[in-house]
Amino acid sequence: MSDFNGNYLLGLDLGGSRLKAIALTREGKELARETTPTNTKDWQTNVLACVSALQAQLGTPLAIGAAAPGLAAADERSIAHMPGRLPGLERLVWTTFLNSPTPVPILNDAHAALLGETWLGAAKGARNVFMLTLGTGVGGAVMCDGRLLRGHLGRAGHLGHITVDASGAPDIVNTPGSLEDAVSNHSLESRTEGLYTMTADLIADVKRGIPAASAVWTQTINDLAAGIVSLINVLDPEIILLGGGIAEAGEILFHPLTETLDRMEWRPYGHRVLVTRATLGDWAGAHGAAYHALKSLSTN
Amino acid sequence: MSDFNGNYLLGLDLGGSRLKAIALTREGKELARETTPTNTKDWQTNVLACVSALQAQLGTPLAIGAAAPGLAAADERSIAHMPGRLPGLERLVWTTFLNSPTPVPILNDAHAALLGETWLGAAKGARNVFMLTLGTGVGGAVMCDGRLLRGHLGRAGHLGHITVDASGAPDIVNTPGSLEDAVSNHSLESRTEGLYTMTADLIADVKRGIPAASAVWTQTINDLAAGIVSLINVLDPEIILLGGGIAEAGEILFHPLTETLDRMEWRPYGHRVLVTRATLGDWAGAHGAAYHALKSLSTN
Repeated sequence: MSDFNGNYLLGLDLGGSRLKAIALTREGKELARETTPTNTKDWQTNVLACVSALQAQLGTPLAIGAAAPGLAAADERSIAHMPGRLPGLERLVWTTFLNSPTPVPILNDAHAALLGETWLGAAKGARNVFMLTLGTGVGGAVMCDGRLLRGHLGRAGHLGHITVDASGAPDIVNTPGSLEDAVSNHSLESRTEGLYTMTADLIADVKRGIPAASAVWTQTINDLAAGIVSLINVLDPEIILLGGGIAEAGEILFHPLTETLDRMEWRPYGHRVLVTRATLGDWAGAHGAAYHALKSLSTN
Repeated sequence: MSDFNGNYLLGLDLGGSRLKAIALTREGKELARETTPTNTKDWQTNVLACVSALQAQLGTPLAIGAAAPGLAAADERSIAHMPGRLPGLERLVWTTFLNSPTPVPILNDAHAALLGETWLGAAKGARNVFMLTLGTGVGGAVMCDGRLLRGHLGRAGHLGHITVDASGAPDIVNTPGSLEDAVSNHSLESRTEGLYTMTADLIADVKRGIPAASAVWTQTINDLAAGIVSLINVLDPEIILLGGGIAEAGEILFHPLTETLDRMEWRPYGHRVLVTRATLGDWAGAHGAAYHALKSLSTN
């Protein structure tokens, strides 16, 4: 048992391949982190063992918060809707599952990641911010006027599922010509007629000046910028975070994106919105889950 | 002086052509309404005279609220940004201007219209709702989790300025291929190569089965539906209100729109979002301004 002896927060971020668990002080200082595989039928057993190991080391936490894919129930006790992956997750009540003396609030994982970034990451202290996670798909979350947007079913912030081409093909949730299908990894092969399957390879060729790659990248940037300005006009952020693997491209992404935003962005008073990289990476959700548990403590 | 003797709310909605002023009880019962022209240099004199006349009739109100075009300042004392129309509106402090004993909060007019509709109109009691006003342009406002979204500069809810065609021409605020340019009256002439200038005429020809009209209308509905499902995925409403002149088209709008939404809308749990007409019409903003004044009273 450490000196912290229970005076810490435990944040859990359940993904389809692993659980990320982090122990943090109330100020966000990291005490420990662990992961465990979740791509098995026995994922619940692994999660319990991981949490037990951390508690054996640090004591019973002040509060536990969780994040997971899917739509969180309004009471934040469970994920209400998550078809397909992680069998047993839907309607699992986390307070009971973890046998926790304090309620364990659960959030959608993208929502949690944004909370993490506004607590300790690239949008620290921001009250109006949205995040786009550019990877296999395009995830998102929104804070407006200091509050995380949840909406009627907990689906607010599905920013990848806005159209950039109303005449385009339907995406996974039927949105025609969606931002997700225009910029994510999963659609790259079809967008490039089989030339590329990973955005990293595409970007390498853009850097080498290969015209076919540059043409695809220019279109990708144009669609991303159009999606971003649309969301600016709806959500009016002071800062926008880009996360996920594609955002790691650096200047080859941010330079042309900024140029395109100069052309497309509405800038009242000359005000431009800062677009920057998220900084907590894969661990943003676990941080956000811990923060949410802390906030929930003070409202219970 | 009436029996109400000051026990009422006064809501003002300043537009480019007229001021709408309404006196309502705390419960929303109408006591009086007045209008006065504002398309003159002397619009402020007209506004003061209109307000004075109502107060002579009903006494000093419990509270006054105002709505106007432009971006409201964060302190809600003035419109901070409104280039072009209504000279003198920018930075005018309404409490001082009206010499009011209580603070006069001012809201963006589209924000106020949505508040009105959630107080007394088609979205009464809803906590997650957005409104699209389909007319000369496309206006909008959003309530999410029971709160009106304002954002960093007060521009949240500019729902007409989302893209439906990222490769399209820039609209008035530089959004490429915007929803506003795809469905509003102001763009109809260019959208129809000069065939139509008013949506009402287009719709009359759609009803008569004229193929050129039907083709334009089908495209309009498709773009509107794509914009709506995009906003559903970002904002997760329980109800969507359509207002403005074009929404008065009735079934010729709502029937094909519903069919297109059946194809494009993400419906977790089979949940479909209700899309319906706004009911307070031109007076929604004045109602919302009054309601906002009432709410502001209890927080001051």
